[in-house]
Amino acid sequence: MAHLDPIQDVEAEAPLLEVRDDEGRLNRDFIAAVEEAIEGADADRLLHLAADLHEADTGDLIEALGEEDRASFVRLLGDEFDYTALTETDEAVRVKLLEALPNEEIASALGELDSDDAVYILEDMDAEDQAEILGVLPYADRAQLQRALDYPEDSAGRRMQGEFIAVAQFWTVGQTIDYMREAHDLPDSFYEIYVVDPSFKLLGAVALDKILRTRRDQKVSSIMDETRHAVLATEDQEEVARRFERYNLVSSAVVDETDRLVGILTVDDIVDVIQEEAEEDMRALAGVGDEEISDSVLTTAKSRLTWLVVNLGTAVLASAVIGLFDQTIEAMVALAVLMPIVASMGGNAGTQTMTVAVRGIATQELGTRNLLRVLRREVMVGFLNGMALAVLIGVTAWVWFQNIGLGVVISGAIVINMLFAGLSGLLIPVALDRLKVDPAIASSVFVTTVTDVVGFFAFLGIAAIWFGLPF
Amino acid sequence: MAHLDPIQDVEAEAPLLEVRDDEGRLNRDFIAAVEEAIEGADADRLLHLAADLHEADTGDLIEALGEEDRASFVRLLGDEFDYTALTETDEAVRVKLLEALPNEEIASALGELDSDDAVYILEDMDAEDQAEILGVLPYADRAQLQRALDYPEDSAGRRMQGEFIAVAQFWTVGQTIDYMREAHDLPDSFYEIYVVDPSFKLLGAVALDKILRTRRDQKVSSIMDETRHAVLATEDQEEVARRFERYNLVSSAVVDETDRLVGILTVDDIVDVIQEEAEEDMRALAGVGDEEISDSVLTTAKSRLTWLVVNLGTAVLASAVIGLFDQTIEAMVALAVLMPIVASMGGNAGTQTMTVAVRGIATQELGTRNLLRVLRREVMVGFLNGMALAVLIGVTAWVWFQNIGLGVVISGAIVINMLFAGLSGLLIPVALDRLKVDPAIASSVFVTTVTDVVGFFAFLGIAAIWFGLPF
Repeated sequence: MAHLDPIQDVEAEAPLLEVRDDEGRLNRDFIAAVEEAIEGADADRLLHLAADLHEADTGDLIEALGEEDRASFVRLLGDEFDYTALTETDEAVRVKLLEALPNEEIASALGELDSDDAVYILEDMDAEDQAEILGVLPYADRAQLQRALDYPEDSAGRRMQGEFIAVAQFWTVGQTIDYMREAHDLPDSFYEIYVVDPSFKLLGAVALDKILRTRRDQKVSSIMDETRHAVLATEDQEEVARRFERYNLVSSAVVDETDRLVGILTVDDIVDVIQEEAEEDMRALAGVGDEEISDSVLTTAKSRLTWLVVNLGTAVLASAVIGLFDQTIEAMVALAVLMPIVASMGGNAGTQTMTVAVRGIATQELGTRNLLRVLRREVMVGFLNGMALAVLIGVTAWVWFQNIGLGVVISGAIVINMLFAGLSGLLIPVALDRLKVDPAIASSVFVTTVTDVVGFFAFLGIAAIWFGLPF
Repeated sequence: MAHLDPIQDVEAEAPLLEVRDDEGRLNRDFIAAVEEAIEGADADRLLHLAADLHEADTGDLIEALGEEDRASFVRLLGDEFDYTALTETDEAVRVKLLEALPNEEIASALGELDSDDAVYILEDMDAEDQAEILGVLPYADRAQLQRALDYPEDSAGRRMQGEFIAVAQFWTVGQTIDYMREAHDLPDSFYEIYVVDPSFKLLGAVALDKILRTRRDQKVSSIMDETRHAVLATEDQEEVARRFERYNLVSSAVVDETDRLVGILTVDDIVDVIQEEAEEDMRALAGVGDEEISDSVLTTAKSRLTWLVVNLGTAVLASAVIGLFDQTIEAMVALAVLMPIVASMGGNAGTQTMTVAVRGIATQELGTRNLLRVLRREVMVGFLNGMALAVLIGVTAWVWFQNIGLGVVISGAIVINMLFAGLSGLLIPVALDRLKVDPAIASSVFVTTVTDVVGFFAFLGIAAIWFGLPF
């Protein structure tokens, strides 16, 4: 990877600017210097500044540049631009930038990348450009990329890297080491090698540290780890991530349905998946889908509107409950003033339980075996916190409206709503999961509906009965 | 690690039960068999079932067992029990189980573990037990664990592993390989070795694949990577995780203030941190702190109550705004029916923006450089979605109450509240971050306050003016 060597042919200038500040953010002076070089079309200066950056820094730098500057940046760097950096930018930024670059250039650059990075860049391009680029590539590269693209999005096969080291089972440790010393087309970095039979069926994996600890005359097959489950290429990346995480894997073989080795996955790809999945739940609970900070106004507005409209249904339903009691409210307007407190406390408590439940389901910490215990806990917690809040709110209402009855009524409603919040916060996500609906996406609408409807109904209903008001 | 070898001395029984089902959950029949063996105090059967499990499976198994069975499980397995499994259980389960085991036994087991695992187990024990266990350990072990425990919680020094391979700069690749073939106290698994000077100052790191590709007579110092930034032992784990993620690291040296190598961090520890941090934001937004599914009723209730009480303040404030308009509501009770819709739509929109902003701040994708652009986007999105919802809600209100004026009033209030939702959803997290307050924890209270107060005020205020009602 030539771009990682410090540029030698540019005269030594003032000391290089720091790329990042203490907090790990890109240094503003550095960005400014890059922008200046781009505007002056000063390729030498730009090479000096940016050619030997790590791909992650280059990716962030591209995001920090104005949209017009991005393509110029790539063009000025020429062959020194490492396309791997594009795997480190937002999708919106990457897609726009790729549109601005000629397809032949992209094709020749992708030929140099590890296949997983090439696929990452190709997969979001439109079908026409994708076909054109694949068409220009040598047969072997094209076949490999096409195979990965044929696997479903979010599958192990889509994310895997086609470059790996596989040796025959009769090889010795010494032969293997000699091979690695002499081969020139090894992957950029690797952590284990794989042992295969003549038909490329996977027999086992050997971690590099094991090779280094073993005498040269030993067979690799004698030190390989057979028990490690290989990943199926069709498996979902979330499944795979869970296995990496659970068994502390650094890399894993990927096999097809016939058990033949087709690629490998490394932990750095999986780290992104793990973070994505945790974030996905958080975003789903808040109804923001997989939007990115660089998305346009229209994309963002559209993706959020669905959620808001669904919630509008919930809100109208809650209003309809209030509508049942319009005469009650007319007779005692203090009820209108206090009723949002009951609904909002229930909503907050429901969200607490639901968040714990959704994550528990995702990490498999919550399952059939402990559901009953957790349910009992949630009911108890709802009751205890309901009592505590009931006292606080009851006294507040009593003092505020000088009406002890109002204090009693709101206290009762709070306890009831907190119990329903705990129950629905747990059972709704669990039920959705059983029905194969993603609990992160759908739970909060239902839970809020329950806490709103129960909150208003309990409060206004008890008040109507207690004070003998019309409804 | 003897426990990883299949048990040979137990007669072959019926085929071993599968440990996990297709979804990756522990197999119920397997758990039942283990419980049976424990209740029958059948050590042989238990060894056969559970002695050669991966530590992650053992950890999950312990969690799945009833509280009474856990200590018996450990006792029956005896020396075959791998204490590393305790690093894979919930804190609450671990602490309870450790209390049930004799300190001498724990001490002798911890002596065998990698230091990071030993620290992980020790750190949550009470000070007295901790001191007793440390007191029994050999001096070298004790000093190493004590040093790690002296570093702050959540620091790199607390999480690091004291076992690593360091060689002198004049060593050749051949010498290094020979050393690794002969040494017996190597770490369980490793991915790079480190080059140090005589005072143990870190000079560089060499990935194992590089060693394997290089000729025996080359000096390790000629192939080491000097530029890789080492982690400072006092650095926060979140910082470190971000660096691992950004630069796709698999392991990293940890140095003290004088640049001396004191330990290493590997990606499997960091994966946990990355997941924890993403989850932490999600939990913080919902106000559930770092509770675990196995926490007791009281712990859970207490940790959640704080958040509910803070939100009660918000709810009372919103009620006070409604209270200002009690005469308006008395004159037109339909306002009481509709007002929660305005507040709830604003709350949902505010949460959407806030979630994006909080994650953007955490991943440093949102910063000063793009704040203005994102702000413009949020205002536009708020306006567009506000208009869309205004039409929907306006028509609903008009038809429902046969009053076109009511439709106009609620439409206006919705647009205003959606704008405020976008503004506050973005600016409140950013401002809190500037003030060094964790935006994930504090944002939602403030954002909800804004959307509730603005929502009720705008709707009731506009209505009072439009219809000429008293307030």
